[in-house]
Order: sequence, then structure tokens, then C-alpha cells
Amino acid sequence: MARRAHPPATLTAHHDCEFREMLDRVGDKWSLLVIAMLEQNPTQRARFSELKRAIPGISQRMLTATLRSLERDGLLIREVFPEVPPRVEYELTALGKRFMEPVRALVAWLQANWSTIRMARESFDRRAARSQKLSARTPV
Amino acid sequence: MARRAHPPATLTAHHDCEFREMLDRVGDKWSLLVIAMLEQNPTQRARFSELKRAIPGISQRMLTATLRSLERDGLLIREVFPEVPPRVEYELTALGKRFMEPVRALVAWLQANWSTIRMARESFDRRAARSQKLSARTPV
Repeated sequence: MARRAHPPATLTAHHDCEFREMLDRVGDKWSLLVIAMLEQNPTQRARFSELKRAIPGISQRMLTATLRSLERDGLLIREVFPEVPPRVEYELTALGKRFMEPVRALVAWLQANWSTIRMARESFDRRAARSQKLSARTPV
Repeated sequence: MARRAHPPATLTAHHDCEFREMLDRVGDKWSLLVIAMLEQNPTQRARFSELKRAIPGISQRMLTATLRSLERDGLLIREVFPEVPPRVEYELTALGKRFMEPVRALVAWLQANWSTIRMARESFDRRAARSQKLSARTPV
């Protein structure tokens, strides 16, 4: 086989692992939704039940796990107030607030280009449907 | 129950759906890896087998599905050369190349803050281990 002039760079095992770990962080939509919700809130803090109401479709278990992993990453803090029953509030850390900047830029890009992506999808689906019809008519 | 002054904004069903669709796009790490690989390649195009080699751990089926969904989104084009056996190459579109800008900014942020996140995790895990030990010693 002839060697191509520019084969794509191969990720090293180490870099690959770090990159994927970072992508897992970025790609967790529940985490992004929780951070976005806290960030939209003027006090930038909220109780569990408020977050649950604000994010339709998230389960109790998923919200608990998401909050725990965000706390573990240092993006939010969990504060327990010694009341009966104990009140628990979640608040973005400075790191969590700074994280919103690149996330917001990415979401803004997607919003700005969403109609282009949507049109590309529609045209792709039309082509796919046409070629399926054609192949159905082709005698075997 | 007393109303809080600033409840978190509730996503409308429509916005929520759009936002999640966009997050699915962003959060698909295989898509981001394929785009990153093509983008790192000076010709910004590659064959299937090259991509497969360059992305360790991706299965044939997953790479096929990922390439198809990126093509559907208009982020890459698939070109078939009439050779025997036919040669197929994938190339980033202008949209695909522009998409890399906000993605790169996000990855750069994560890289810059990765050691902070890692330290937060280690300290969280130490605290969790300590409180587990404490609760194991507490008589029931």
C-alpha cells in the first residue's frame, strides 16, 4: 500500500485518554443543563427541588449523580443548612462560573448555525429517501 | 412553601428540545474526535481506514454511524472515487472547519483548568473516604 503524504495524526494513548475524559465532561448534557440553570439564576444557587423542576425529564437519581460529579470537579459547592428538615443548596464556584464562558460560546455557535445544520439534514434525508426508492426499483 | 425571590429559569419545552439536540451534537465524543482528526490532517481529508487507525477504540460500526451523522449535519462530505475497489474519502466542509473554533476554545479551557479539576477530584475523594471511615466507626 502506498504511504499517503499526510496520514491523520494518531492520538497517543495518554493524550487520547485525557481528551476523552474532557469530552465526557463537556458532553454530559445533564451537567451542562445544571450549570446553565444555576448560572441563569441571579443568586447562582438553588435547592435540589428547584433544579429538578427547572430541568424537565431529569430523574431524581440522575440529578443526584450529576450534582455529585459537578461537586467532585470543583464546579459547584453543596451547602447544608442545619434546619429541620436540613436545607441543602447548590452554588456555582468561581471555576464553575468561568466554565460557562466557553460553553456559552459553543452554544452560541450552534444556535447561529442551527438552521444551516437543519437544512443540511433535510437535504441529506431527501437524497437518502430518493436513493432508497431508486434501489427498490432496480431489478435484482 | 415560601416563594423564593429568584427561582431558576425553567426551560420551555421547545427551547429545551433544541438545546438538548445541540448538546447531543456537542457531546458526542466520537464526532468531536473524527472532526479533530480530519482537522489535524493538513489535507483535511482522510479515508475510512485511516480514521479508524487514528481513533483507537472506535468500532467499525460506530465510525460508520458517526461519519454518516456528520455528513447529514453538513459538517463533512463523503467522496467516492470510481476505482476498483472504490476509494472513499471524507473531507471537512467549510461549516465543519468553522465548528472547530468554538470546540477548540472549549478544549483549550478544559486543558488549562484540567489540573484544578483533577485536584478538586482528589480532595473530594479524600473527604469521601474519610467520612466513610468515620461512619464505619460510628456505632449503629
